[in-house]
Amino acid sequence: MHCRCCKDRAILAKKPEKTNKDYMAKEVTPRAENYSQWYNDLIVKAELAEQSAVRGCMVIKPYGYAIWEKMQRILDDKFKATGVQNAYFPLFIPKSFFSREAEHVSGFAKECAVVTHHRLMNSPDGKGVVVDPEAKLEEELIVRPTSETIIWSTYKNWINSWRDLPIMCNQWCNVVRWEMRTRLFLRTAEFLWQEGHTAHATAEEAIQEAQTMVQVYADFARNTMALPVIVGHKSPGERFAGALDTLTIEAMMQDGKALQAGTSHFLGQNFAKSFDVQYADREGKLQYVWATSWGVSTRLMGALIMAHGDDNGLVLPPALAPIQVVMVPIFKTEEEHQAILDRMYAIKKELEALGHSVKVDDRDTLRPGFKFAEWELKGVPVRLAMGPRDMEAGTVEVHRRDTLEKQSMSVDGLAAHIHALMDDIQANIYNKALSFREANIEKCDDWEEFKAKIQTGKFLLCHWDGTVETEQKIKDETKATIRCIPVDSVVCEEEGRDIYSGKPSHARVVFAIAY
Amino acid sequence: MHCRCCKDRAILAKKPEKTNKDYMAKEVTPRAENYSQWYNDLIVKAELAEQSAVRGCMVIKPYGYAIWEKMQRILDDKFKATGVQNAYFPLFIPKSFFSREAEHVSGFAKECAVVTHHRLMNSPDGKGVVVDPEAKLEEELIVRPTSETIIWSTYKNWINSWRDLPIMCNQWCNVVRWEMRTRLFLRTAEFLWQEGHTAHATAEEAIQEAQTMVQVYADFARNTMALPVIVGHKSPGERFAGALDTLTIEAMMQDGKALQAGTSHFLGQNFAKSFDVQYADREGKLQYVWATSWGVSTRLMGALIMAHGDDNGLVLPPALAPIQVVMVPIFKTEEEHQAILDRMYAIKKELEALGHSVKVDDRDTLRPGFKFAEWELKGVPVRLAMGPRDMEAGTVEVHRRDTLEKQSMSVDGLAAHIHALMDDIQANIYNKALSFREANIEKCDDWEEFKAKIQTGKFLLCHWDGTVETEQKIKDETKATIRCIPVDSVVCEEEGRDIYSGKPSHARVVFAIAY
Repeated sequence: MHCRCCKDRAILAKKPEKTNKDYMAKEVTPRAENYSQWYNDLIVKAELAEQSAVRGCMVIKPYGYAIWEKMQRILDDKFKATGVQNAYFPLFIPKSFFSREAEHVSGFAKECAVVTHHRLMNSPDGKGVVVDPEAKLEEELIVRPTSETIIWSTYKNWINSWRDLPIMCNQWCNVVRWEMRTRLFLRTAEFLWQEGHTAHATAEEAIQEAQTMVQVYADFARNTMALPVIVGHKSPGERFAGALDTLTIEAMMQDGKALQAGTSHFLGQNFAKSFDVQYADREGKLQYVWATSWGVSTRLMGALIMAHGDDNGLVLPPALAPIQVVMVPIFKTEEEHQAILDRMYAIKKELEALGHSVKVDDRDTLRPGFKFAEWELKGVPVRLAMGPRDMEAGTVEVHRRDTLEKQSMSVDGLAAHIHALMDDIQANIYNKALSFREANIEKCDDWEEFKAKIQTGKFLLCHWDGTVETEQKIKDETKATIRCIPVDSVVCEEEGRDIYSGKPSHARVVFAIAY
Repeated sequence: MHCRCCKDRAILAKKPEKTNKDYMAKEVTPRAENYSQWYNDLIVKAELAEQSAVRGCMVIKPYGYAIWEKMQRILDDKFKATGVQNAYFPLFIPKSFFSREAEHVSGFAKECAVVTHHRLMNSPDGKGVVVDPEAKLEEELIVRPTSETIIWSTYKNWINSWRDLPIMCNQWCNVVRWEMRTRLFLRTAEFLWQEGHTAHATAEEAIQEAQTMVQVYADFARNTMALPVIVGHKSPGERFAGALDTLTIEAMMQDGKALQAGTSHFLGQNFAKSFDVQYADREGKLQYVWATSWGVSTRLMGALIMAHGDDNGLVLPPALAPIQVVMVPIFKTEEEHQAILDRMYAIKKELEALGHSVKVDDRDTLRPGFKFAEWELKGVPVRLAMGPRDMEAGTVEVHRRDTLEKQSMSVDGLAAHIHALMDDIQANIYNKALSFREANIEKCDDWEEFKAKIQTGKFLLCHWDGTVETEQKIKDETKATIRCIPVDSVVCEEEGRDIYSGKPSHARVVFAIAY
């Protein structure tokens, strides 16, 4: 569609301007060329995060952190609506706590940050500081990789009778897992997350809580992140260390790989037994307490980037965009600039009254084309551009980040239009991701076909005999894992034969190669 | 004042009920008996926090964390209104970074948590886990006691030209300082805080920023925490390690001791020079960047408790109370209970529409007297009680936590009354604390008088000759320190002679014994 704004931009034609494409080509590696590099480019160029001076630890930059803050706020409200309260537990866990729950120690305690000393001293050679050997801790402390152990050692003191239950606490905090190979947001030595830990009188209540929370996550993924997810149970081999059941939300990235975006665990009485947490029931009989835990992390940032981004940069769903509308003035003279800015600030006020976050890009040292590319890179859902001809005609150019379409519109009724457009964009981003997943998920009943297709980036719905052995063999041969035994979104219960062993199976599960 | 509610309570007279006093006497140590134990009792009995299994680290319980969250939300909005953005920097700092800024290392690096290894292994004796000696880090990592070093090593990559300045980042995080003697909220090995770190092109801008932020803190203390504070400069001996100037807000607790509640530092070019952070100015000349940092922590929780609490428990200012109004039904029969609850839920709805947080205490296993004591202990600003006679008369008993006064009121117009009452209570709590401070602050010009009075819990306004030597001698003899060289609230500039050395002085400073 031809619009006035393009003519306005011709004003600047004297100095040849780089097009968006030139700019972007230089900045962001196309997905088709190198998906992994594309992902990294987006994070760094859009100023979401960067590597720090500390191996495997990232710096989350203001623009990235603003997205994370939006995620936090929305999730936090959802948690609280179910009766969860926030609390804070210590960063450090005594080493001996990890020996209490046998599976948990093998799952978590191995690769972790260990604090052994509590003091530095001036180096005897006068150069810098060294660890003071006199200041060795009696018992080493582990920087929490997850907090079940420290929290259940605390709950022991909070729980005496059935009247004290349920306890439903969540904490927003940092955790550390000494990962050998790290990637920004997806796998970092330190990451930010929330971990909910609940204590219940009965198994039924705890199972219900684990289900409630995975649905909170699914709802958040779908409606806020515009991310279609499959909810399901993990196979025993993929469960959280110490859980009787792990529920997960699994998303498909644009390379067809799976990303586990959140998990909710039914922990049975394992931690209650390890930390001797019992309550007196209504008959006065002592019973072990039933537990859940559930968490999502800054990994969600990785999912958001990889699910929706394109070769121009991020594509942010309006519900999470720190800036929902950016306005770029196109001008030749300072008088024009000022007149356009005045009109833009008036529009900004209207949009803000409707609850939108708006930025007027009034920087006078940068050209419009540069600004266009920058805000596309940063994924701002809607861009408004206005030049002298627009001023005369009472129009504005409206550009959608998700479709890259632009349209000239009257300034009259603009705010209401943009308001409605946000919902359209949110829905469109979701539907696009959903269509992509639907095009890349299929039933598969032939092992040779499985081996070929799984490498091309597919979710394959296959029969599985339910054994750890088969699961492991498939993983060894193809790197594919069972992402989940789905409870929604895709077909599940159906009689058939295991794709690998040929043994009888009652349901299909989702196989994919995962991040 | 005699009210219907008291008569209603007589209904329950058959089972002799413990009075609030009996209950409280058993629970909370009176201030006059043992102030320090009173403080600890309040925290534990009101369920704000408790000691954890890890030495010096606390668990912040849901009720305490809800207050901290309110503090965070209000402060965060104030920061953002000045242009500050949130970000996140690593938990760990390479040991060598601490050697870069000479004063900083001596101030912070000594008592800290040192990570030396990254793996545990099963113990060779088969019992539990031990640190894997093979997994020693090449360079030890320090758990951040404060983040100037890691942040300035990052800013180096963000800053090239004057166009990149100012940078104004804040982070909400946990920090660790290996304190030998800890007290809940006031001094813990791990604590939660925010730390702002800004980078500026000129000294003037940085000095202005440090002043802006200390005023943000003072405004928050006064208007949200109802805490009268004195704003001032720290003497050189009390400055932050690495700062050219430290601004502080100082509050008086009920024992007359001072509590430093927040600080804002002008760091000069110290960190820029240590981490080689230069920018090209408008003339293209390289200049070192100017810095500030500023922070408040969960220590504010300690200030809140100690400034306002009484022998019945916490007294929370409405602006920070997680529950602003609690309602307690008084009843004999289940029919009465239900009818009262129905009316209470209607009132709750009205109050919530006015923006207040309200709880109806519908527990049917506890007696009203017990509930009254519990909510007094937890510092809920307003309690409403209603019994069958109130139901007939259309009245309710309104009890103020700050004055312990109660009054019978008509249900008509109640919500508007409570709404206004919140402002009264907020102002009254502030004024009470201010009156207390004014009664316990005085000029002092005689050394013998100083020594006697400072031990009784006073802020003494004294002349000081400006030398570190005198300051140190006064501290050695009396434990009193210069809390600040005030810039508001109390008289300052005035000619006189140092209280200790007798040398000339141009201003009075605030001496006190501090937490």
